[in-house]
This record gives sequence, structure tokens and C-alpha cells, in this order.
Amino acid sequence: MQDQIYMQLVLEIAKNTMLQTLPNPHVAAIVVKDGVILGIGCHLRPGDHHAEIYAIQQAGAAAKGATLYVNLEPCSHYGKTPPCANAIIAAGISRVVIANLDENPLVAGKGVAKLKEAGILVDIGILAEEAYRLNQVFFHNVKHVQPFVTIKVGMSLDGKIASYKNLSQWITSRSSRKDAHQYRINHTGILVGVGTVLSDDPSLTPHLIENAPRNPIRIVLDSNLKTPLSARVIADKLAPTIICTTVSDKIKLELYQYAGVDIIVLENLEINTVLNELYKRGIYSILVEGGEKIYASFIESGKVNQIISYISPQLIGSRDAKHFFAGNGFADLMTNMKLKLETISQLENDVKLIYTKAL
Amino acid sequence: MQDQIYMQLVLEIAKNTMLQTLPNPHVAAIVVKDGVILGIGCHLRPGDHHAEIYAIQQAGAAAKGATLYVNLEPCSHYGKTPPCANAIIAAGISRVVIANLDENPLVAGKGVAKLKEAGILVDIGILAEEAYRLNQVFFHNVKHVQPFVTIKVGMSLDGKIASYKNLSQWITSRSSRKDAHQYRINHTGILVGVGTVLSDDPSLTPHLIENAPRNPIRIVLDSNLKTPLSARVIADKLAPTIICTTVSDKIKLELYQYAGVDIIVLENLEINTVLNELYKRGIYSILVEGGEKIYASFIESGKVNQIISYISPQLIGSRDAKHFFAGNGFADLMTNMKLKLETISQLENDVKLIYTKAL
Repeated sequence: MQDQIYMQLVLEIAKNTMLQTLPNPHVAAIVVKDGVILGIGCHLRPGDHHAEIYAIQQAGAAAKGATLYVNLEPCSHYGKTPPCANAIIAAGISRVVIANLDENPLVAGKGVAKLKEAGILVDIGILAEEAYRLNQVFFHNVKHVQPFVTIKVGMSLDGKIASYKNLSQWITSRSSRKDAHQYRINHTGILVGVGTVLSDDPSLTPHLIENAPRNPIRIVLDSNLKTPLSARVIADKLAPTIICTTVSDKIKLELYQYAGVDIIVLENLEINTVLNELYKRGIYSILVEGGEKIYASFIESGKVNQIISYISPQLIGSRDAKHFFAGNGFADLMTNMKLKLETISQLENDVKLIYTKAL
Repeated sequence: MQDQIYMQLVLEIAKNTMLQTLPNPHVAAIVVKDGVILGIGCHLRPGDHHAEIYAIQQAGAAAKGATLYVNLEPCSHYGKTPPCANAIIAAGISRVVIANLDENPLVAGKGVAKLKEAGILVDIGILAEEAYRLNQVFFHNVKHVQPFVTIKVGMSLDGKIASYKNLSQWITSRSSRKDAHQYRINHTGILVGVGTVLSDDPSLTPHLIENAPRNPIRIVLDSNLKTPLSARVIADKLAPTIICTTVSDKIKLELYQYAGVDIIVLENLEINTVLNELYKRGIYSILVEGGEKIYASFIESGKVNQIISYISPQLIGSRDAKHFFAGNGFADLMTNMKLKLETISQLENDVKLIYTKAL
């Protein structure tokens, strides 16, 4: 019970570092003895000390015989900083409580082994699920070497994102749209198809949130390079913009580059190819905001990790309307995409449902 | 505050008479004096006394100077029973607390006027919304002289009810399907299109509920009379079955009548026509269970009062899949069907959303 309370504190601290530690995980640590917290540490930026080091330093000599709580397995290798396992052993910590093992092959179980060899008691798995979700982008990155993909969709109860006349403003409530902008902040990149740029000319910034701490990198999938140079995503200069295309006409590409766009020329825009390329450029997580073709490409590629859906209390109808998911579709209920329901909430009259990919 | 507590009791009692009083409303009444309940009454069957009469009879002489709580305005006309307003006045009740006014033009405000003329204090509107919902079928029947229409749909997150290969078993969880069977019990009729009969051959009985108190009347919309005589809805004899058709070939009709089917021959199967005809036959409420064409006909007719939706954690995709709502669809977000979100709940990994038609 006490273990859970202390680990909860660790997670509370760690989750406030959302995005600032990437590509590193969000990690906090505390040192406790006889019910007194002796040290609190948190990893804040890539290259900085790990959380365990700060917590041990603050505890000082009192760390001897104390328990260390940390949400991720302490490292045992020399990276940008020396291994935390060594520091824990040197400080005389007698017990370490861990939420998740690291899946980075450089660490994976080796940190725990090192601690145990030194006679330290190790408990693993406290609040593991919550901790895993906190670092879901990191764990995905390490395992798949691709960005974590979140789909955001606002739709009618019957699964439409625009009427057959392509009218869509606004399907969802202002509260839902504002809520969705939070996800623009906490993803590295935000991706749309050129169709969305042509029909809506969005800025893709989190402008509904006052004093948003950052703008995500904007990514447009645009096979034939039809994005107008006057489009907001290029002209407003509010955030970097990447366009992925198959066009290789150098003169045309230079026009975009001159306008400040980072152009990625690929042989095809298959999702797997795009994700590999974006990851190389430091895009650790992507928020996919449509339109219909982009949603279908991502869903059918099997690369969707999370879906944030806002269901609006209305019916739109028609096969010619824009669907959340049309595409080729799945033939049956054995091979289609299964989801895991994570949370249900209400925003005005909209229902917000968060799903992750079912394993 | 006390008024709310007593009215809550009235509603608790009344809601247990679901369906058994139709076409009459669900009404209960209690007589209270000095914090003591002196009489409790409930209307149980058409033709029986109204709730107020039983409550007053039980209170006897003690009713003098007492307060009567009743969820619906007491009647003032001679129907199957004498007017309740007269009995209330005769009993010496000094105050009457009412949730809803009656909308039946024979009563509408006249009951209250009569009570006030007799010097009785009348308070109206206590728990009005909850009480209105309890009698939503009755209020709808009185106002529109048509059945109250509920759509029940189980669908994927992207609004599909079957894959493009028409596979649909089972989109929703067993808990959802069982929950949905409750609505088969508390509607007078259950309606499907002939397509559903041909593809699924459902019994349309609440068979997932043990010892279900009743089977609803089964209604099939079947323009060209393609329902096989061997279909469960005809052959199992578990409940009455009505088929609405435009076929007038007497020999063919006799085959169905001989099989025990109640055949209604109409010039067309427009929803308005069908509802008028069904209401004449004592169908006060209808649960519409699909398929796709039937859902669209009902939605586009504007005759849907309530939607019970179960959203399954999966994606199906394809324009060729069966949609909850395809049809002609609505052109824009000004003229489309707007809903009012009533309740959100979870059944296994499905999300159940209840909506009513937004006014």
C-alpha cells in the first residue's frame, strides 16, 4: 500500500515532463526511509542526470538503508551519463521499487540484475500499467523505431466527418475542439493529408489554448505537391512544416524549400515508409488529424497506436459523406482492427472515447 | 425538499408498471399528512381505478387536510372511471403536488383548474423531467397519435453494422446484446426490414433474458413479401407477427394469414403511413432494430424519438460495408438530425449511449 502511494507520487512528478525529455523517457525517483521522503529527483532534459541521481544526491548519507522508488528500471550502461545502478549501490540503498522494466536492449533487465547482485531487494511492477501509459511513446519508439501514432477524430454518431457536400464545421463542440488541441501540444508532429489543407486551410497550431507552450511540427502528406505556397501551414511561419511527396522535380521542390518547408521526397507515401523517414528526423509521436484517406491509410497500415474520438450528437448519413473510416475496409470481424477502450468522458454534449490498439 | 422525496417515491412506484397500463400513463399517488404516509395508490391496468383513488381510499377520513402527490395531473372528465379531481375534492385534500400536466386535450389543465376552484393549493413541476421520461411513450402517443420510436443499434466505432461481406456476428459484446433485450421487453413492437429476416433469421424475442415477462409483437417491413414462411418470426409462434407489405395478391396473402401472420397491405411503406397503421392496432411503441435501409428510412422520416447505441471497440471500414446510417444523408450541419445525449455507460468494452431527438 505504501509502495503504491510513493509510486503514485513518482508518476505525478514524471508526467509533468511530458515531451521535454524525448527521446528519453519520463522518469522520476524518490528516496524514502522510515516514512520520510529524503530525496526527490526527476529527469528533465536529454543529457541531464537521470532521476535516481538527483534523488540520491539530495538524500546524501541518509540514503543508506533507504528505499528508492523509480518508475523505470535504473540503467546499467554508460550512455550520456554514468549508470544509475552503480550510484544506487554506492549510496547504500537497500531496496528498489520499480514500475516498468526498460525495454531498451542496452538496459532490459541488466539494471535489475546488477542491483540484485549487490544484495539490494528489488520489487517490480508497482502501478506498472499507469507507468507504461506515461511512457507509451518511449516504449513504442524503442521497440519499433518509428513514431507513436495517435488518430484524433471528431465525428457524428454515425461515423461521418463531413456531409456529402463536404460540410464539417463544426461537427464537434468548442470544448471538444479545445480539448483536442491539448494533443497538438503533446505530440512531436501533427499530420494531415493535402486534401485537408486544400479544403480547410488549417494552421494546425493549438490556437484554442491560451499561451500554448509549443507548436507541433506540421507534416503534410502530398504525393503530387499540390499544397499552395499560400497555405497557412507554409505562410504563417508559426511552426516548422514538413511535406512528404513523391514529386522529384527540383525546380518545384526549391520553391517549397525557399518558402521554408522541409521537403521529404520518397518513392511512395506508404505509411511504413513515411514513419521510418519521420522518425529519423526526430518525430517521436504523430497526431493524425485526417482527412478520410489519411485515416484509412493509417488504420489499414496497422500503425495506429491510439485513437482519440469525439462523438457529436448528430446524424449525417450518406455513403458519399466523408467517413472516419472508409478505405478498403476489413472483410470480417476476425481480421479487422480491434481496440481497447481506455477512457470515457463527456464534453458539452459530445462523448470523448480514448482507445488504444488491442494487443 | 420533502416534496422531491415524496415525488421520487411516486415515480419509483409508477415505473414498475411499465407497459401494463398502456395506452394509459404510468401513474402513482401517495397521501401524506404530518410526515406520515396515509395512502399509496397506483394505476395498474386500463379500466382500473386511477392511482389517486386508491391512495385516497386507503387514507380514508385521515385524507382531510392532507397533501396528495401524483406524477400526472388528475383527470377531470368521465372516462372509464369517474374524474379523480372530484374524489380529491370530496376527500378534503388541501394540497396537490403534481410532476407533469396531462397533454391529453380532455384533461390538459382542466384537472388543476377544478382543484384550484375548490380552494386546493396546487404545485406543479416537481421532478417534471424524470416524470416526463417515465411517460414519454404516453405523452408522445397523445400528442402525435403514432407509436413512440426507439432505434437500437450495435456498431463499430466507425459507424458500421456489418462488414462489406455482410458479416456482423457479433459486433457487440454479450453484455450489450443482453442489455438490448431489455428494450425488446419494454416496447410494444419490435420492427425490422425483410433484409434482416433474410440474412439473420432472428427470433426477435428477448431470449437472452431469463424468464422474460413478455415477447413483443414482431413487425416486418416487407414490400414484396419475401419473408419465407419458414422464417423464425413466422414459424416459431413465440409471439404475434405483423408483416407490412404493398403486395395485394390474395392467394399469396392467404398463405401468410394461414401461417398466423397479421398482414397489413398498404399503398406504400412510407414510415408515416406505417406508423399510423400500427398505432391503430395498439402498437404504442416500436423498437427498430435495422437493417441499414430501415434505419435510414426512419431517421430521414424524422420519426425517431430515441436512439440506444452500443459502440463496439473495433473498426470495420469500407463504403460497401453496412452503415448505421447511409441513406440519402443530410446535406449540411444545419438541417441534419440533432440529438440530445441522455446517458453514457459501459458494458464490457462497449460504450452505450442513449440519445433522444433534440427539440
